[in-house]
Amino acid sequence: MSSLPISFDDIVQAHARIAGAAHRTPVLTSTTANDLSGAQIFFKCENFQRAGAFKFRGAYNAISQFTPEQRAHGVVAFSSGNHAQGIALSAQLLDVKAVIVMPTDAPAIKVAATRGYGAEVVLYDRYTEDREAIGRQLADERSLTLIPPYDHPHIMAGQGTCVKELIEEVGELDFLFVPLGGGGLLSGCSTAAKVMSPGCTVIGVEPEAGNDGQRSFREGKIVHIDTPATIADGAQTQHLGQYTFPVLQKLVDDILTVSDSELVETMKFFAGRMKMVVEPTGCLAAAAAFGKQYDLKGKKVGVVISGGNVDLLRFAALIQGAA
Amino acid sequence: MSSLPISFDDIVQAHARIAGAAHRTPVLTSTTANDLSGAQIFFKCENFQRAGAFKFRGAYNAISQFTPEQRAHGVVAFSSGNHAQGIALSAQLLDVKAVIVMPTDAPAIKVAATRGYGAEVVLYDRYTEDREAIGRQLADERSLTLIPPYDHPHIMAGQGTCVKELIEEVGELDFLFVPLGGGGLLSGCSTAAKVMSPGCTVIGVEPEAGNDGQRSFREGKIVHIDTPATIADGAQTQHLGQYTFPVLQKLVDDILTVSDSELVETMKFFAGRMKMVVEPTGCLAAAAAFGKQYDLKGKKVGVVISGGNVDLLRFAALIQGAA
Repeated sequence: MSSLPISFDDIVQAHARIAGAAHRTPVLTSTTANDLSGAQIFFKCENFQRAGAFKFRGAYNAISQFTPEQRAHGVVAFSSGNHAQGIALSAQLLDVKAVIVMPTDAPAIKVAATRGYGAEVVLYDRYTEDREAIGRQLADERSLTLIPPYDHPHIMAGQGTCVKELIEEVGELDFLFVPLGGGGLLSGCSTAAKVMSPGCTVIGVEPEAGNDGQRSFREGKIVHIDTPATIADGAQTQHLGQYTFPVLQKLVDDILTVSDSELVETMKFFAGRMKMVVEPTGCLAAAAAFGKQYDLKGKKVGVVISGGNVDLLRFAALIQGAA
Repeated sequence: MSSLPISFDDIVQAHARIAGAAHRTPVLTSTTANDLSGAQIFFKCENFQRAGAFKFRGAYNAISQFTPEQRAHGVVAFSSGNHAQGIALSAQLLDVKAVIVMPTDAPAIKVAATRGYGAEVVLYDRYTEDREAIGRQLADERSLTLIPPYDHPHIMAGQGTCVKELIEEVGELDFLFVPLGGGGLLSGCSTAAKVMSPGCTVIGVEPEAGNDGQRSFREGKIVHIDTPATIADGAQTQHLGQYTFPVLQKLVDDILTVSDSELVETMKFFAGRMKMVVEPTGCLAAAAAFGKQYDLKGKKVGVVISGGNVDLLRFAALIQGAA
């Protein structure tokens, strides 16, 4: 695997770097989930991670490797939300200035939290403007280091630490379900899983409306799509990355999709039975595990819950609405 | 302390009895909570306990000590909800028949869950009928063993295991805040705390509308009140118990009250910042810790979150409503 952009050793080093800063999040189980699936499911709860999502892991891993000069100038990031908060909080903890480019329709809670971490927020229109261009321009003008939300080896290695922790805690797995947007989380998690649990079937899960990952995986090249309309706002990516795609091609076994209504049902399950607030994107992996596309009877299954950052009024409305 | 109905050794034995059956629930922290209070707060999350509340601990501890004859006949319990579920699930796991006497206005989710655990549910009117009398009659007629929701040494010792776990995990505490209804949880937790962390100030917290515990504590005798109108449905008890009161008198340092609107604010905090669903009663201790009646600056503080069993539509409505 030497040709891939990250190795398991990168994840081990990232884990040492983030220790003490990131939470070692709990792994929870649910008798109801086990009864429904026939499997033994272990939920890795990154909704309890600092800043409310796994993104903190990669962000902290990336910024903590800045040179003194990079630290002095600051970091810029573009993100639909959780990456922004992860970068903003990491920058605050590491005493680095952060500028975050966020879409105007990002959940209010995410914009407020990003500003709360001391970052400067620059808003853009998700449907008409190019966030990458805005980010690059800011980087050039102010000598900021641009940290993209997923397509960066330090980000990918950092995200992989969550599955390293999961397998350290519960042992080898038969299946692992991981949410898929741009592939940062999935590339890191699959790298950890295939070394620590070689027999594990690794499955990425994306929203039905934005199945570019599934298509890319099947067609063998990165497929670009328009910004998909889905409640999974953390997985509204338009394409996989140059770094993440080859890792997914080599280490991921399948990519499934789930509908928005399945996400809402799963969100209700988490709130009602497991007493957790999980954002729509955070429900992707569980929705697929509950979806019976794979027979999980008698299997040991890991499910990554990626985050919990959903506006409370929106959360209440989703819980109340018919699926 | 030999005159008290439970000792720390009873809690140690209870812990061994419930090991493997009960979850060792996670202890979570929140930078925001620490910033707001100036303290280092450790939340013991019994909302993630089996059946959604700490009640499982005491119930399992009690039923697992049944004689073969008691097991053969079955158990009866009266409860506003969480005790019912704890008894029903424990009875199911220990292969004992359970009959549960529940109020007609108990949250639908609690009635459904109790039946889901295979128990027979007998409903009564909370405001006109006497649940204890109904429970005793059922016990007599069918030779069932009555397990009251709080006033029983096996229940009290079982509940204390949650603070045993908390202090084992985080070390000694300066303050411990615990919800108070009939005193089962508080008597067990104070017994554990005063042995494992002798310098710890132990504070019980009840709803403002139902401050019988506070009055009893101050007046030196058990005060009886009418069923209080509060959203904290798990703390609508009318009086402390004969077993719990002497433990509280001896080991608890103070009893505070919080308003329903403070409970709603705390519920929003847990959902929005800590990504947890906590029922109103489960917010009692945290609301008091946030309430500034004690100066917690620089202190190490334990807060017991007692449960998460709130009907989802009710939860959504509470989150949406102005406090």
